[in-house]
Amino acid sequence: MGSLGHSSTMVDLSHHINAKSRARHPSPLKDIIKFMGYDGMVSFAGGLPHPSLFPLDQAKFDCLSPEAPLPANRHSLEQDNRDGPSLTFGRGLSAGDLDLTQFLQYGSGAGNRQLIALAKELTERVHSPPCKYECLLHPGNTNAWAKVVGLLCENDDYVIVEEFTYPSAQALWIPMGIKAVPVAADAAGIMAKNLRHLLSSWDERKRGSRRPRVLYLVSVGSNPTGITISAQRRREIYDICVEFDIIIVEDDPYYFLQYPGYGSPTEISFTPKSIPEFLNTLVPTFLSMDTQGRVIRLDSFSKTLFPGLRLGYFVANPVFTERLLRATEVETQDPAGLSQAFVLGLLQKWGIDGYLTWLQNLQFQYRTRRDWLLDAFSAHFEPLPAEKSPIPEAQGFVVCLKNSHDGKAKPVFSFVDPGAGMFVWCKFYFDGIDRFMEIEMAGKSKDPEQDFASELWQAWATELVLLTPGSYYHAWQGPDKMSTAARGADPRTAHFRFSFATPTKEEISTGVARLAKVIAKYWE
Amino acid sequence: MGSLGHSSTMVDLSHHINAKSRARHPSPLKDIIKFMGYDGMVSFAGGLPHPSLFPLDQAKFDCLSPEAPLPANRHSLEQDNRDGPSLTFGRGLSAGDLDLTQFLQYGSGAGNRQLIALAKELTERVHSPPCKYECLLHPGNTNAWAKVVGLLCENDDYVIVEEFTYPSAQALWIPMGIKAVPVAADAAGIMAKNLRHLLSSWDERKRGSRRPRVLYLVSVGSNPTGITISAQRRREIYDICVEFDIIIVEDDPYYFLQYPGYGSPTEISFTPKSIPEFLNTLVPTFLSMDTQGRVIRLDSFSKTLFPGLRLGYFVANPVFTERLLRATEVETQDPAGLSQAFVLGLLQKWGIDGYLTWLQNLQFQYRTRRDWLLDAFSAHFEPLPAEKSPIPEAQGFVVCLKNSHDGKAKPVFSFVDPGAGMFVWCKFYFDGIDRFMEIEMAGKSKDPEQDFASELWQAWATELVLLTPGSYYHAWQGPDKMSTAARGADPRTAHFRFSFATPTKEEISTGVARLAKVIAKYWE
Repeated sequence: MGSLGHSSTMVDLSHHINAKSRARHPSPLKDIIKFMGYDGMVSFAGGLPHPSLFPLDQAKFDCLSPEAPLPANRHSLEQDNRDGPSLTFGRGLSAGDLDLTQFLQYGSGAGNRQLIALAKELTERVHSPPCKYECLLHPGNTNAWAKVVGLLCENDDYVIVEEFTYPSAQALWIPMGIKAVPVAADAAGIMAKNLRHLLSSWDERKRGSRRPRVLYLVSVGSNPTGITISAQRRREIYDICVEFDIIIVEDDPYYFLQYPGYGSPTEISFTPKSIPEFLNTLVPTFLSMDTQGRVIRLDSFSKTLFPGLRLGYFVANPVFTERLLRATEVETQDPAGLSQAFVLGLLQKWGIDGYLTWLQNLQFQYRTRRDWLLDAFSAHFEPLPAEKSPIPEAQGFVVCLKNSHDGKAKPVFSFVDPGAGMFVWCKFYFDGIDRFMEIEMAGKSKDPEQDFASELWQAWATELVLLTPGSYYHAWQGPDKMSTAARGADPRTAHFRFSFATPTKEEISTGVARLAKVIAKYWE
Repeated sequence: MGSLGHSSTMVDLSHHINAKSRARHPSPLKDIIKFMGYDGMVSFAGGLPHPSLFPLDQAKFDCLSPEAPLPANRHSLEQDNRDGPSLTFGRGLSAGDLDLTQFLQYGSGAGNRQLIALAKELTERVHSPPCKYECLLHPGNTNAWAKVVGLLCENDDYVIVEEFTYPSAQALWIPMGIKAVPVAADAAGIMAKNLRHLLSSWDERKRGSRRPRVLYLVSVGSNPTGITISAQRRREIYDICVEFDIIIVEDDPYYFLQYPGYGSPTEISFTPKSIPEFLNTLVPTFLSMDTQGRVIRLDSFSKTLFPGLRLGYFVANPVFTERLLRATEVETQDPAGLSQAFVLGLLQKWGIDGYLTWLQNLQFQYRTRRDWLLDAFSAHFEPLPAEKSPIPEAQGFVVCLKNSHDGKAKPVFSFVDPGAGMFVWCKFYFDGIDRFMEIEMAGKSKDPEQDFASELWQAWATELVLLTPGSYYHAWQGPDKMSTAARGADPRTAHFRFSFATPTKEEISTGVARLAKVIAKYWE
């Protein structure tokens, strides 16, 4: 919990809790738990299985060390880093680093206390939230977002999202009749003036629903756009949220994967910075500027340790974490015990400083991978700064055909150098492309952009290279707002997403070459 | 999947899927997955973190052996069974019993294929379902039930439950405006004629909601009643469910903890039966008689391995598992990877036969614990078969005061010998107890039974012994149906639940002595 002295500007936000969540009662069984702790109490009240009958006696995990450099270009899983700690868990207090028994038994719903304390310590170090908060464990951000929707949203609400947003987050609420209201972004994130306009001009009758109350953001290295919202833009957005009483859900799995700009100096191998220096390179979070308690932060270990853990934590106003705990009790219970044991053991061995060093190590790795992809763009195309390109109004770089027939720069796609995360989001330009114009002229297609994008995708797949179609990420505004024209998107454009997280350097080079081959066919 | 030849009696049950669940669409991202497997494909489409950057290199679990006898009366966790297998998981195909990498990465939602295959093998061995089914992993029965409610129930529905039912299962749906319709039970489970009457006389207008379509049952060793529904009763119930088109949700965590009757011969230490002999002692499940595909079975490893796994599986009609998978993708994703790895590794090492031997071992343990509690009842009270007791209409045994002043058997509570599970459910008789009559006569109490039960509970807690109040388990029929009179319960009675799973033999003896002391004070 943040120091109480900081909480003076907190406001009562309990009216954001929806009817269903308000109707949850604490389990009456929980009342008995305090009695169970009495000295000499004999309890016939618990319903727990007997821990001596759990068939797991000991667990041992061999881990990597946070400091040891991971060779950036290794392709396989050979481990070059065998000097990391081992975590041993036994049954009983002195049988290893931690007593395994507590992690095998049912938990309280909130999660292991020591792990929560570490989550708070990490939260203080990284975000220093200015107001009162609690940490509550959850089984991954997918479930965390489901619980937040269960906390805040009513059927047929609108939720504010980025213009291109994470499809699974939407898939959860589409069956509830909820729709997205997208806000357009530039390279610094969603535009504050658009957000303000949206909220100030909201017409409840025309929209058929109350003004949105929830803003969902992957605000660092957004999936799919790769955009990180700047500090200045965050302050503007936060102020608007205060003015219009909006809850900000900060889904932030890529927070620690923030990179220096493409082309800035880099080392061959990883060299850690001091922790304060590292933390200084990270953009301030919404949580760090949350004086009122209106930010619900979803933190996850999926991208920083591994996804199979299904473990993360909420950081939020106690008014919200109390209700989220009620939902946890009846919907999921504690995250898995072995996951809790592993993370607690690892963070204790590494220390918070060790974890923050590991994160720099990861950052170096993914930055290197981002550079491989952008290097391959340069090798196979001609990227120009937008302002010097044939499309000066584009964001970032405009990637043109190399050596086009007529010697003029012929634009293919534009992208913003992703300062974080795992994705490069590319806007393709179809204007003047023969095959596209043919589809458009024929007048039979309801969505020529989408149809040509599909044809292109198929042609790439045939050449053995896969991208993700941008259409997967369109904000869901209802079945009548699906075509390029109906969405009001730029005509004669479509998006594709590149992920640079998984392929090797050679695969990236081969893949971009295959893309370029298909593009040459269509664009020339 | 069951053999297709058996599926001829399956009926179309898709009308049971609620509006929200019907509205879920498969993630478009899943379409790309099939392309990813093409030889030589370079994929920029995935969004997975790179597995070489997961800091866990190796995991090792030391397990108990399924056959070795566990001393029934051990109090602590000293392990006397150190000859069990070790499971080792490394990174790469030949680095241990299983390649750890797949369990560290994101899964498909359905769970690990090998583990699903084992769940199917176990399902075939134990239940031989007569019609087509699928197994789908879930993170524990709490979440499984939440997903089933999300699949089948609409707001303001009624759900059919046992008269006394598991409170967390109800707590989930109470905020949806759902109410329970309880069905009374005798020692063989909920009464078929009451179920039929309930359904055939359902008055939609009077009830304000459609006839119930879901029957929720913990049908073996029910929590709290300890009742196991007999094979004959199950057939009657199943037929009624066919007639009235009801889906049976078989929440069955205690299935393998079925015991011979109290007082039947027992061995000092565990001796395993042959597997077919063991399986023959178990009551047939609803799944085993499900010719139409209307049973959704919730299986869990929480009581048979350990709860911290947060791992179990649905067995159900593919029409339902397909929708449950859609919900899994957006609400939870796969269960935790380390839990999946542990269970898969253990079941592979032990074999299905080994697991079924382990279950007999557990059965012996919990049966012994049940006997300790019923022995303590005999030591401190005088249990009489109901028909020879002052309350011949009671079920099972009527426990009377030992050496009561006037030499007449004075009834305290009745119970049915729990043939399964972890609980003894006791019905206390307050008629003629001075303090109770005083409360009742004073006429100030809205619920004298409940008030006296609370006083009794407090008096026990003061003497350092805890039971769970029966009121926690009342079927939720709305705020107007909470008192003993309003529920139509037997006047001058109340229930308490004993759990025998956790205390030691000495604690059980001490605890029952303390109970008896307080009871003597009130009853004499």
